[in-house]
Amino acid sequence: MTKEKLVQDITARDVDFAQWYTDVVKEAELCDYTSVKGCLIYQPNGYAIWENIQSALDKRFKETGVENVYLPMLIPESLLQKEKDHVEGFAPEVAWVTKGGNEELEEKLCVRPTSETLFCDHWSKVVKSYRDLPKLYNQWCSVLRWEKTTRPFLRSREFLWQEGHTLHASAKEAEERTKMMLKVYYDFVTEDLAVPLICGRKTESEKFAGAKDTYTIEAMMHDGKALQSGTSHFFGDGFADAYNIKFLNKSNELEVPNETSWGLSTRIIGAIIMVHGDDSGLVLPPRIAPTQVMIIPIAQHKEGVTEKAEEIYNKLKQTNIRCKIDCSDKTPGWKFSEQEIQGIPARIEIGPKDIENNQAVVVRRDTREKIIISIDELCQKIPTILETMQQDMYDRAKKFMDEHIYAATTKEDMIDIFTNKIGFAKAMWCGSKECEEEIKSLTGGASSRCIPFEEEKLSDSCVFCGKPAKHMVYWGKSY
Amino acid sequence: MTKEKLVQDITARDVDFAQWYTDVVKEAELCDYTSVKGCLIYQPNGYAIWENIQSALDKRFKETGVENVYLPMLIPESLLQKEKDHVEGFAPEVAWVTKGGNEELEEKLCVRPTSETLFCDHWSKVVKSYRDLPKLYNQWCSVLRWEKTTRPFLRSREFLWQEGHTLHASAKEAEERTKMMLKVYYDFVTEDLAVPLICGRKTESEKFAGAKDTYTIEAMMHDGKALQSGTSHFFGDGFADAYNIKFLNKSNELEVPNETSWGLSTRIIGAIIMVHGDDSGLVLPPRIAPTQVMIIPIAQHKEGVTEKAEEIYNKLKQTNIRCKIDCSDKTPGWKFSEQEIQGIPARIEIGPKDIENNQAVVVRRDTREKIIISIDELCQKIPTILETMQQDMYDRAKKFMDEHIYAATTKEDMIDIFTNKIGFAKAMWCGSKECEEEIKSLTGGASSRCIPFEEEKLSDSCVFCGKPAKHMVYWGKSY
Repeated sequence: MTKEKLVQDITARDVDFAQWYTDVVKEAELCDYTSVKGCLIYQPNGYAIWENIQSALDKRFKETGVENVYLPMLIPESLLQKEKDHVEGFAPEVAWVTKGGNEELEEKLCVRPTSETLFCDHWSKVVKSYRDLPKLYNQWCSVLRWEKTTRPFLRSREFLWQEGHTLHASAKEAEERTKMMLKVYYDFVTEDLAVPLICGRKTESEKFAGAKDTYTIEAMMHDGKALQSGTSHFFGDGFADAYNIKFLNKSNELEVPNETSWGLSTRIIGAIIMVHGDDSGLVLPPRIAPTQVMIIPIAQHKEGVTEKAEEIYNKLKQTNIRCKIDCSDKTPGWKFSEQEIQGIPARIEIGPKDIENNQAVVVRRDTREKIIISIDELCQKIPTILETMQQDMYDRAKKFMDEHIYAATTKEDMIDIFTNKIGFAKAMWCGSKECEEEIKSLTGGASSRCIPFEEEKLSDSCVFCGKPAKHMVYWGKSY
Repeated sequence: MTKEKLVQDITARDVDFAQWYTDVVKEAELCDYTSVKGCLIYQPNGYAIWENIQSALDKRFKETGVENVYLPMLIPESLLQKEKDHVEGFAPEVAWVTKGGNEELEEKLCVRPTSETLFCDHWSKVVKSYRDLPKLYNQWCSVLRWEKTTRPFLRSREFLWQEGHTLHASAKEAEERTKMMLKVYYDFVTEDLAVPLICGRKTESEKFAGAKDTYTIEAMMHDGKALQSGTSHFFGDGFADAYNIKFLNKSNELEVPNETSWGLSTRIIGAIIMVHGDDSGLVLPPRIAPTQVMIIPIAQHKEGVTEKAEEIYNKLKQTNIRCKIDCSDKTPGWKFSEQEIQGIPARIEIGPKDIENNQAVVVRRDTREKIIISIDELCQKIPTILETMQQDMYDRAKKFMDEHIYAATTKEDMIDIFTNKIGFAKAMWCGSKECEEEIKSLTGGASSRCIPFEEEKLSDSCVFCGKPAKHMVYWGKSY
């Protein structure tokens, strides 16, 4: 096998984006199919990204006072059914346990598709007074949704996520929490994953089953499609009422509390791939990359090369830089390819000539820029290179997104954008479900992504029906 | 509510150990029952202990080269059935998914009780050459076993654990890994949880379903019963053979690899409770305690008290000490009780008199020893106090265990030990399953816990049948 062979395994991104995506996932060894239809194995390279996401996001949650818990994976049918809209939304796509050991169960249990019902059930037992509020809970777990078609990370029957659930004495406090957690997602995704976002409120028809308001962060993939990357829901007192949660307020009167939930899943790994990846494979943002630097000795059979490479490795290890060294018997070219496919942000090449000059060559994964650095300054300069790369990746993706959002004031504009261009449209909307459906049908599937927090006024009337406009909406085809 | 009320909620440990355990779990808010029979909610106080266990153990795994992955929670029936002993061991206690969405499944899927079958299935597809070995995988997940009777942490239908699975080119390497991981467990449990252990190999009848050898760490609870706290299994090539995993060795010949698995679960939290707890509640080993120090202001309405307490809090926060401050309007006595029930290793009491003398009172949870420390020296002295406490907790538990292991050379000795004493017996054994069963029946349930790595020779003959002895065995009643 040669370097060329390895790179040839990846379809060019602009030739067939879907195949490119599948190839990258496979060649970077992020995840693989299993004998269980629609379920994946997250391989070490993929799971390590998720671990870093967990650790960074968990820290941000805890800074806002959130505590982690773990609730059962099974939900009795009767419990699932208490909130009408919620069960209608989820019942068609849950898997049912009907047998335990050798006996048929009296009541079937579904594998959780999400856990609002369980949190409510728990709170209905333990919450008694305003002193017990707020409850700020989160759990990291897997959930199951019986999807018909699946794609790695983007849609699978089982996926990993976190689901936050909070309970508050007032609607105001719950609404603030809903927005606070959207902000946590926004900051995390833009700062740590270098993925630019638009964000705002979902329209009525795109809301979560049972929510009063759903807020969302949406990213633009390199093919111009949207990926809903995290959502935060305000439930008002609907769930609490259905599950009979009450508390005594300070005036000793019974009140129904208000609730939120918010989730982000392994889908976000799909966004990292489709926003940053290129024809050579994955490109990982340095802050989230499991390995940030790969050290590759050149002509390692020559005296002193491996030793020097290991010396550099041991020095870097003592800093916060996450680095590895590849002293295997593969060729340097092969090692370069592997490092590039896996998206490791930088590599250090060190050969006999470099050693003579007391220097090493650092190659950035995103730009391929080669930077010559004195060996003595590696520990000091690499963090700066990684941070610059992080910022450059964000800026590049932001520019791409901004250049692919088009204002539309007529039906024709909308059709043109979604026929002849890639990206999002922004357009005024009357607020009716019918117009959303017509737009979707006319554009080959563009849906309302969100009503941004700060709306522009592009015109006075709905882009579709011409009636007075209520909101500006971002529209896009989506994953 | 007063301080006394709170403590009265816990049954005295020596009056009714089982009730004491249940009370501590409840009052310390570690976990709670749910509407799902046999399944628990791990509340923030309980889950935070598990998070610290995860983080400490995960670090130890990774230091040995282990990588984390995630495999599906569902296993097709046909896949479960490939290894005969394994399916016989687990089939009676699995839950079955038979319906997905609205359709009956063609093949039923069990919720994983353990994942050997899935790892084997994956490896049968991806392992081709000796270059692909070893595979050193671990996953953190929940598993489901359809138990009839359940107890918090000790036995529940769903529980959290890690399961490590490794694949090796040779039996020797796999056996070494099996023992290496047992050593990792041993070091972690004794060093971080301050729980002393005996360890060794399981007898044939106590082995894991499908294993050639099972190694175990066993802890002695305060009531003298054993808790199996972690196991490591050597499978030889049995599973690999059943699942058709083959690799080309260096001589280009097909070989069947060897496998191991090893697991530790939330059960270990039961060990922490039952080894260290006392009549006032939980006592957490400082290294694993989510909160190590609780700062409690005395007479906090007096000028400067809250300010000083917060000043101390902010100083401690800047060190590695995990601390909290309780400025709520509860009485100090109530706060002391809460801190004690939750097992927080130390509290700092700070009142007007202390402030006058520029000192604070540090109270150790385990001994209740009061230590007066200058405020300026708190940051420096508290880590030492916590480390001393950690060591003292281990020493105390070790002394208790050593004093409750009795040598038995006759059947009468065995009956006497398990009738009139609490603890373990050590006795010689002929190696027959029949003697194990007879001993269990005669002693009201004492089973062989393990054959230690270093056996003593207590006599020449089996404690039960008198035939020549093959091994020295530790015996105990167990959870």
